[in-house]
Amino acid sequence: MIDALHFDANGLIPAIAQQHDTGEVLMLAWMNADAVAETLRTGRVCYWSRSRGALWRKGEKSGQVQRLIDLRFDCDADALLLLVDQTGVACHTGRRTCFYRAIREDDVVELAGPVVDPAALYG
Amino acid sequence: MIDALHFDANGLIPAIAQQHDTGEVLMLAWMNADAVAETLRTGRVCYWSRSRGALWRKGEKSGQVQRLIDLRFDCDADALLLLVDQTGVACHTGRRTCFYRAIREDDVVELAGPVVDPAALYG
Repeated sequence: MIDALHFDANGLIPAIAQQHDTGEVLMLAWMNADAVAETLRTGRVCYWSRSRGALWRKGEKSGQVQRLIDLRFDCDADALLLLVDQTGVACHTGRRTCFYRAIREDDVVELAGPVVDPAALYG
Repeated sequence: MIDALHFDANGLIPAIAQQHDTGEVLMLAWMNADAVAETLRTGRVCYWSRSRGALWRKGEKSGQVQRLIDLRFDCDADALLLLVDQTGVACHTGRRTCFYRAIREDDVVELAGPVVDPAALYG
């Protein structure tokens, strides 16, 4: 089924993670074919870390894992929507969602603060 | 404020469109700096069409426009979350959302059919 997906020139596809019951958009990250396959096989979300150049099993350090509820893809098959059940917080800053800032009237507004100390997540 | 965003090597940033009141993720598309600026200025969502290589004022042909409610960005400032009010359907196939297919148990499952005939949208 992974053959149905269109990966970019770097072999990657963007993946949106959305909390399955609240609808909150948690983060956007990237997957390669191996990450998609592992995620489908294990039911635990695995991305591709572009900075580390390696598979990134979400929560492997922090414990803030994502359990896959449903894996959807779009009309062009070049973007994924992952419905997940997020343990704790999605963002490495300790916030529930990575999308915690907005541009409003030429200002950057912070919408939410950390609910967990990042130092407690990453030691 | 647009200077706070990190565009990729092609000058683009991925943008998730989410219906502001229902939480439905409608689509993922791309913006360049001009598209972000126009969207903030006009309150009507404008993307960058990678296939056409031009600004893409969502709904310019179909009438299925997106009114911007809030423009958010993530912790790495390399992804946008647009809260929008979608007129009609987001998908060029006539479906409300572009994410209408799922991979479930090694099968592709279609979750929703068209609610509008694409021929009626694009003539």
